[in-house]
Amino acid sequence: MKKTLLLCLLMGTFAFSQTEDEKQLKAIYDTALTNGKAYDWLNHLSNQIGGRLSGSVEAQQAVEYTKGQLDSLNLDRVWLQPVMVPKWVRGAPEFAYFETKPGLTTNVPICALGGSVATPDVGIKASVIEVQGIEDLEKLGRDKIEGKIVFYNRPMDPTQISTFSAYSSCVDQRYSGAAEAGKYGALGVIVRSMNLRLDDFPHTGSMSYGDTPVNDRIPAAAISTKGAELLSTTLALNPDIKFYFKQNCKQLPDVESYNVIGEIRGSEYPNEVMIVGGHLDSWDLGDGSHDDGAGCVQSMDVLRLLKETGYKPKRTLRVVLFMNEENGLRGGRKYAEVAKQKNEKHVFALESDAGGFTPRGFSFDCSEEDFEQILGWKELFEPYLIHLFVKGGSGADIGPLKDEGIVLAGLRPDSQRYFDHHHAENDTFEHVNQRELELGAATMASLVYLMDKYGPVLTKKIKG
Amino acid sequence: MKKTLLLCLLMGTFAFSQTEDEKQLKAIYDTALTNGKAYDWLNHLSNQIGGRLSGSVEAQQAVEYTKGQLDSLNLDRVWLQPVMVPKWVRGAPEFAYFETKPGLTTNVPICALGGSVATPDVGIKASVIEVQGIEDLEKLGRDKIEGKIVFYNRPMDPTQISTFSAYSSCVDQRYSGAAEAGKYGALGVIVRSMNLRLDDFPHTGSMSYGDTPVNDRIPAAAISTKGAELLSTTLALNPDIKFYFKQNCKQLPDVESYNVIGEIRGSEYPNEVMIVGGHLDSWDLGDGSHDDGAGCVQSMDVLRLLKETGYKPKRTLRVVLFMNEENGLRGGRKYAEVAKQKNEKHVFALESDAGGFTPRGFSFDCSEEDFEQILGWKELFEPYLIHLFVKGGSGADIGPLKDEGIVLAGLRPDSQRYFDHHHAENDTFEHVNQRELELGAATMASLVYLMDKYGPVLTKKIKG
Repeated sequence: MKKTLLLCLLMGTFAFSQTEDEKQLKAIYDTALTNGKAYDWLNHLSNQIGGRLSGSVEAQQAVEYTKGQLDSLNLDRVWLQPVMVPKWVRGAPEFAYFETKPGLTTNVPICALGGSVATPDVGIKASVIEVQGIEDLEKLGRDKIEGKIVFYNRPMDPTQISTFSAYSSCVDQRYSGAAEAGKYGALGVIVRSMNLRLDDFPHTGSMSYGDTPVNDRIPAAAISTKGAELLSTTLALNPDIKFYFKQNCKQLPDVESYNVIGEIRGSEYPNEVMIVGGHLDSWDLGDGSHDDGAGCVQSMDVLRLLKETGYKPKRTLRVVLFMNEENGLRGGRKYAEVAKQKNEKHVFALESDAGGFTPRGFSFDCSEEDFEQILGWKELFEPYLIHLFVKGGSGADIGPLKDEGIVLAGLRPDSQRYFDHHHAENDTFEHVNQRELELGAATMASLVYLMDKYGPVLTKKIKG
Repeated sequence: MKKTLLLCLLMGTFAFSQTEDEKQLKAIYDTALTNGKAYDWLNHLSNQIGGRLSGSVEAQQAVEYTKGQLDSLNLDRVWLQPVMVPKWVRGAPEFAYFETKPGLTTNVPICALGGSVATPDVGIKASVIEVQGIEDLEKLGRDKIEGKIVFYNRPMDPTQISTFSAYSSCVDQRYSGAAEAGKYGALGVIVRSMNLRLDDFPHTGSMSYGDTPVNDRIPAAAISTKGAELLSTTLALNPDIKFYFKQNCKQLPDVESYNVIGEIRGSEYPNEVMIVGGHLDSWDLGDGSHDDGAGCVQSMDVLRLLKETGYKPKRTLRVVLFMNEENGLRGGRKYAEVAKQKNEKHVFALESDAGGFTPRGFSFDCSEEDFEQILGWKELFEPYLIHLFVKGGSGADIGPLKDEGIVLAGLRPDSQRYFDHHHAENDTFEHVNQRELELGAATMASLVYLMDKYGPVLTKKIKG
């Protein structure tokens, strides 16, 4: 009898608590949709500043602009965290064509991959060998590769429902294609853009030479998907065509830049730190609206939405706008390094770096105990059509914080349109929908609220 | 012991059956994403034909084109079902301005609402009374309304997560605003566009004069949301401004048109009919890509996807492209009328009329027994990120089929961007994403497959 009574009381408490959480989430979503700031901030970042490649004037302008906006939010503290970043510059517009017979040329859209070396001033002109991936190189051998341009043409797999899965299974061509082809004597590499659509935009992105000596590095460029199809069809008809490309990008010495950080100090557990963030740098071809202007302004709005709805975090909550995710991850590494030096205890980190599209849910990198607690909150999100709570990766910038007890999470927006724009000239403001962006900010703020209110399970246990 | 064995056997059967269904869904989605036809068909409907208002040349072209495409699919039967439809024409581009003092005018974008009468040839110029909805008219009374233009300015509620809910709670202004304001002696009505964004596109849509005598009908136009904001702000500063608008739209006599129907005859229960459809007509301002070209081409592809994946329906499966959903619903009514005359037993109807965006799930109008069976299929859809299975409305065109035993369903795509384009000049092909469209077709085909394979529960009971 007493047991039943206790159960009733407990359930009563639970029901009350649910209602309070329901109210708080509703307040957050309503505020985001009627009085959101994310879209205005993104408008400025995208249209007044533009692409924000690490080390560029625009990246510095973005640091100053976002710091100024955070200053205006009356947080407890806003500061810049210095970090040395690589400075790679694209130089003059790249140029490429293929030649079916002497004098008969067809231009194709290319762009240098980030981190690539330049071609010689006169460009490179050579025969082309098409492959479906790095694994083809060994089969072909040096004989068939030496002195040629390797054309990596494996497309993203359209049957993957998550376009990020399709990307992951393809991006090795872009990242390591030049280093690998160089070992077989290739003169350069051309990589099919990571894009599920057929269009004329080449998509840049980072690449690495690994431990290839400086003098052995060969230039690498992306070709648009339509360009890749055309080149492949032409090669099938005539394997002897020549491909020409020219680019004069270069790597300059590292320069100083900053992570931008704003903080609300925790009212009960100020030494437990939660962060929410995105990366402030972007590629240079578009204005970086989806990647990752969206994640930055959503993260900034998380703190504002909690303040506007009257919620005071028990734990210290920071927004971190990381510098240099795209071509170095220096900002993410620096933040984790400083946190370790200062012996800060990070208990939760949430990143938005998958575009400003309709939010579908989150991916969590955490203990089973924490994941179980989180699954208990799932129904609170259903009225907002947030259904996806899965274990998996979180975000590149927050990865270096990984440690026992921390919950890492990534916002998972609808991914279908993301690679239409990713790292390309058409990653621009008009492709971001205001409501979708705001729903993302509200979804993030809701998770931060719940995580702060109930606290990560494993952390408590470890402290226990 | 025996009971346990039976249970194991049953579970074994269930597990096997699940696997077969999983395979079939995978085959459907893979085919849609690698070899879909929907996008090509939509390209033709949108870019070669364009807006398809009932009774227009374009509507007739769309009838012929889609019939031809269905003919090419080797279905068992393809036919046109005649239906008389209203023919309303927009006439010359509408024109409007407000005048703050004589000679000082500001143009604003408007368009006639579908079914509206024209203004006099010289237009209408009058004072404006702004209201937040029909319910304000009675409070104001004839004194404050007579001789004026009523300006309905209640915006869609941005806090509704489903934008269709926001639409439903606003659209009475557009549909009945003129009939109601006319009762108080208004000269005309201007209605804020049903759009959650602020932009310059006026959004048309159907309106009705109810039983208002022909001579008492007053003209009605939509104003863009930015125009509405400007007008409202100006009125607050100066209530005496005059508003001018001119339109010469008119209603012509009804003309003959067609529903386009294609059929695969059922292998086991040919007398049980399942239909999948959208509406072929559209408004005239854009090219009707989302509303509802998308639903038509998805429905056509459902039959093709089932054929391509080797599935032969046990029940008769029809694709129905309904004519005249937008301003009359004559096609939907005719289809149901003929079905009743012929004593056809319809057991399932699925409509796609909410845009070609990423599919999120379905809404079902059916018995509890059927809904329970459907919920049992939900996990089959989870790999495709389809999570939403709710009871509710289905689609306007299939509504007239409602009867005991039938399961009605509507595809529910992500709704955030829908009203940015709905009934406006920017409902155009480039705003439809190929993968999102194809995912919708696959999601519909998957439901049709399951419904055919397992059969609607209540139908079986009734037949008992």
